[in-house]
Amino acid sequence: MLYNSLSRKTEEFIPLNPQHVGLYVCGPTVYGDPHLGHARPAITFDILFRYLKHKGYQVRYVRNITDVGHLENDADEGEDKITKKARLEQLEPMEVAQYYTNRYHDAMDSMNVLRPSIEPHASGHIIEQIAMTQQIIDNGYAYISNGSVYFDVEKYNKDFPYGILSGRKLDDLMANTRTLDGQSDKRGPFDFALWKKAQKEHIMRWPSPWSDGFPGWHMECSAMSAKYLGEQFDIHGGGMDLLFPHHECEIAQRCASSGHRAAKYWVHNNMITIEGQKMGKSLGNFITLEQMFSGNHPKLTQGYSPMTIRFFILQAHYRSTLDFSNEALQASEKGFTRLMNGIAALQRVKPTDKTTIDISALDKKVAEAMDNDLNTPVVISTLFEWIKTFHLLEEGKESITAEDLTSLQKSVAVIVENILGLKNQKQNESHKELLDGVIGMILTERQHAKERKDWATSDAIRDRLKELGIAVKDSREGATWEFSN
Amino acid sequence: MLYNSLSRKTEEFIPLNPQHVGLYVCGPTVYGDPHLGHARPAITFDILFRYLKHKGYQVRYVRNITDVGHLENDADEGEDKITKKARLEQLEPMEVAQYYTNRYHDAMDSMNVLRPSIEPHASGHIIEQIAMTQQIIDNGYAYISNGSVYFDVEKYNKDFPYGILSGRKLDDLMANTRTLDGQSDKRGPFDFALWKKAQKEHIMRWPSPWSDGFPGWHMECSAMSAKYLGEQFDIHGGGMDLLFPHHECEIAQRCASSGHRAAKYWVHNNMITIEGQKMGKSLGNFITLEQMFSGNHPKLTQGYSPMTIRFFILQAHYRSTLDFSNEALQASEKGFTRLMNGIAALQRVKPTDKTTIDISALDKKVAEAMDNDLNTPVVISTLFEWIKTFHLLEEGKESITAEDLTSLQKSVAVIVENILGLKNQKQNESHKELLDGVIGMILTERQHAKERKDWATSDAIRDRLKELGIAVKDSREGATWEFSN
Repeated sequence: MLYNSLSRKTEEFIPLNPQHVGLYVCGPTVYGDPHLGHARPAITFDILFRYLKHKGYQVRYVRNITDVGHLENDADEGEDKITKKARLEQLEPMEVAQYYTNRYHDAMDSMNVLRPSIEPHASGHIIEQIAMTQQIIDNGYAYISNGSVYFDVEKYNKDFPYGILSGRKLDDLMANTRTLDGQSDKRGPFDFALWKKAQKEHIMRWPSPWSDGFPGWHMECSAMSAKYLGEQFDIHGGGMDLLFPHHECEIAQRCASSGHRAAKYWVHNNMITIEGQKMGKSLGNFITLEQMFSGNHPKLTQGYSPMTIRFFILQAHYRSTLDFSNEALQASEKGFTRLMNGIAALQRVKPTDKTTIDISALDKKVAEAMDNDLNTPVVISTLFEWIKTFHLLEEGKESITAEDLTSLQKSVAVIVENILGLKNQKQNESHKELLDGVIGMILTERQHAKERKDWATSDAIRDRLKELGIAVKDSREGATWEFSN
Repeated sequence: MLYNSLSRKTEEFIPLNPQHVGLYVCGPTVYGDPHLGHARPAITFDILFRYLKHKGYQVRYVRNITDVGHLENDADEGEDKITKKARLEQLEPMEVAQYYTNRYHDAMDSMNVLRPSIEPHASGHIIEQIAMTQQIIDNGYAYISNGSVYFDVEKYNKDFPYGILSGRKLDDLMANTRTLDGQSDKRGPFDFALWKKAQKEHIMRWPSPWSDGFPGWHMECSAMSAKYLGEQFDIHGGGMDLLFPHHECEIAQRCASSGHRAAKYWVHNNMITIEGQKMGKSLGNFITLEQMFSGNHPKLTQGYSPMTIRFFILQAHYRSTLDFSNEALQASEKGFTRLMNGIAALQRVKPTDKTTIDISALDKKVAEAMDNDLNTPVVISTLFEWIKTFHLLEEGKESITAEDLTSLQKSVAVIVENILGLKNQKQNESHKELLDGVIGMILTERQHAKERKDWATSDAIRDRLKELGIAVKDSREGATWEFSN
């Protein structure tokens, strides 16, 4: 069951082609560092991608990179975001796009977000965008004005319901909007650009039948989803902020070019707030992921690991708003450690000859929660209930056979690692500092043994360290260690 | 000084624009796992990129991804490599390209190869390739044949020297080649495709003035280097195997379209052999990087870390052939550990009130070697000489002031980390196993203390572990540990 923004109902998920799922999600505009607002959709649709694969579907997951055409405001005015950044940093726009694409990938990798099957770039699909624009002109739903091409919303609304996704009605929208001042190339205030003629100073430009220019922002997702997922596909995802106008315009473009709305299910994650406020550069609460990880931001009392962020996001349902605060994140950090320790306890359980618990209940409860519109908070609270059982098993207060233990350990690994995409980061992090501390302790114990003239212990410590790949060097100032080969 | 394949001489490097360097390097065709043959050019040009930046240049480094147009053989025949792989794996070609692009990035990241400034995809620059092809037709150096466009080598050779890079002469080449059988669309045997008409079953295709089709392989590098680096730029790099025909054809395309050879310096790394043989799938000695890292290949007696591979490659000059064998790699592994331990020893040196060594000699020798056509083996042997000094300093047999020590440590860090791009991987790896081992040792010592009724020591160990973030749990079967929060 999946909530469909188009029907405003939770619906049974039935793919267009059995066993295959086509999933398109709006990716980042790569003109700045990835921030919390990027983490939530990436993790939400990562969970959907993982769970569909877990259910045995073959999923083609397409998530784009917007590296051209996203203007400073959605009304098709202002400068291209990437061109502006390039101008400020005195770089070629593609250097800016590449740099922030890499930063985005690094941040997503660190949060264990799986990479999509195809990650197409808007600038790499100009031909396809020109072709779809031409189709819309040919079908009578767009007009050319001073070298730019605009979508004719009023004309379209006569044949198709503009506003079907957002629930807005064009008449109401029009009633609340000032009329155009006559300076614009557009005929109607809700018309949007399919192709923009480039100003002289604009670097990113391509030839087209109408002008040297660049595609409108909404066009890329329509053209790329058509290319890689076909005229109709299963799921289109993105943040709630993209529902209008971006996704509404995508539906209009697809209907105007091919007669189909393209996606069957529209899935939207809710937004993130910071201590109750909308995140925004002017509010001083704009926090990049790098700042979250390092703690290097006035709003943060400490850094939070990528897994803490992921766990925090999964503790809320994707359609609820989510408020970031240090208190909430610290609670998540503790919770995540408790979960990881519970799993470690399960690994230490000694099997006996009978099982006193119902091991099938875990998988059942998790499947119910996930099948119910990806209810990850219920999955996590279920795991916390089970952790109590894991400790009881470890302490011998409940018992389990070897076969059941293996099966339970496997279930937990599938739920935590495959479905939720959580991993014990502490075990994967560099333990250099900790290692220095612990080896220092051992060398101190060895020193004490020497002082007691307990040469057997002192030698045994040196030998065991050597086995572990650690060479001890004695000197007048004490012992030091290094990795031996 | 840099060896220029075009002049066959080592030349002084003078950039076209002071302080700016444009560098283009041929990247991978993403239809299979990255292997040793990818590691060498990536690391060679990473060294060039790093050293140019170290010298204070602002470098725009462009390395492409070939995701369309590279046919099975260079004579413009056979299937597109990516399409073929997609057919075999029953995937959309872009899924194949994305998968192997990710694999390539992961392998390069693990070997600490810096990412290029721009990484353009061939499939994302069809418009630019069509435009350059049209220019060449307009200039009279290409002809249309059955919807494909071919470069007219004979016509070109009357105005420009075909073979200028490879030293081949068209007359000699012709004398040793069978004439065409009349079945080909080409007029001459050395003519090459700028645009290929797609067969019906070909999925990757775009509209063009000549046919629905795709660009010839050589065209992408010419079009993308022109777009991001301009009509003329400084350095074009790649493996020696690409010198002919790929780079020869690139020069021809650029001369035929704009009159310029485009790159001033052509730099080629030499090839890799495996136990004296050419690497090839049919010879059973084709080793992917993942296999190198894991040791999972019949030719390998063990796995070699990404840093060992990098170090091994840097121990040879980039213009020498390089032979992989287990013995040679094991020697590099030992050598790399020796280098890292030497650097660790330098960190432990205690400064005194005078310096008995000439610390400026290190930077001078390294600069001489790197300025002499990137002589990394001399840099490494210089470091090995200095390691002896580091150990003498540590043992107090030579002495150094605090100021000189800081300066020497900084020099070593710049040479090893910035210029050679080496890092102490052991310190960055997961130490989970080692940590388990050493914490086990300290818990054993604590057990011994308890047996001696030395409660003070036993408690001190538990408290110190707690400080380090380790919680000890005592049970009848002994003590276990976990991370506390």
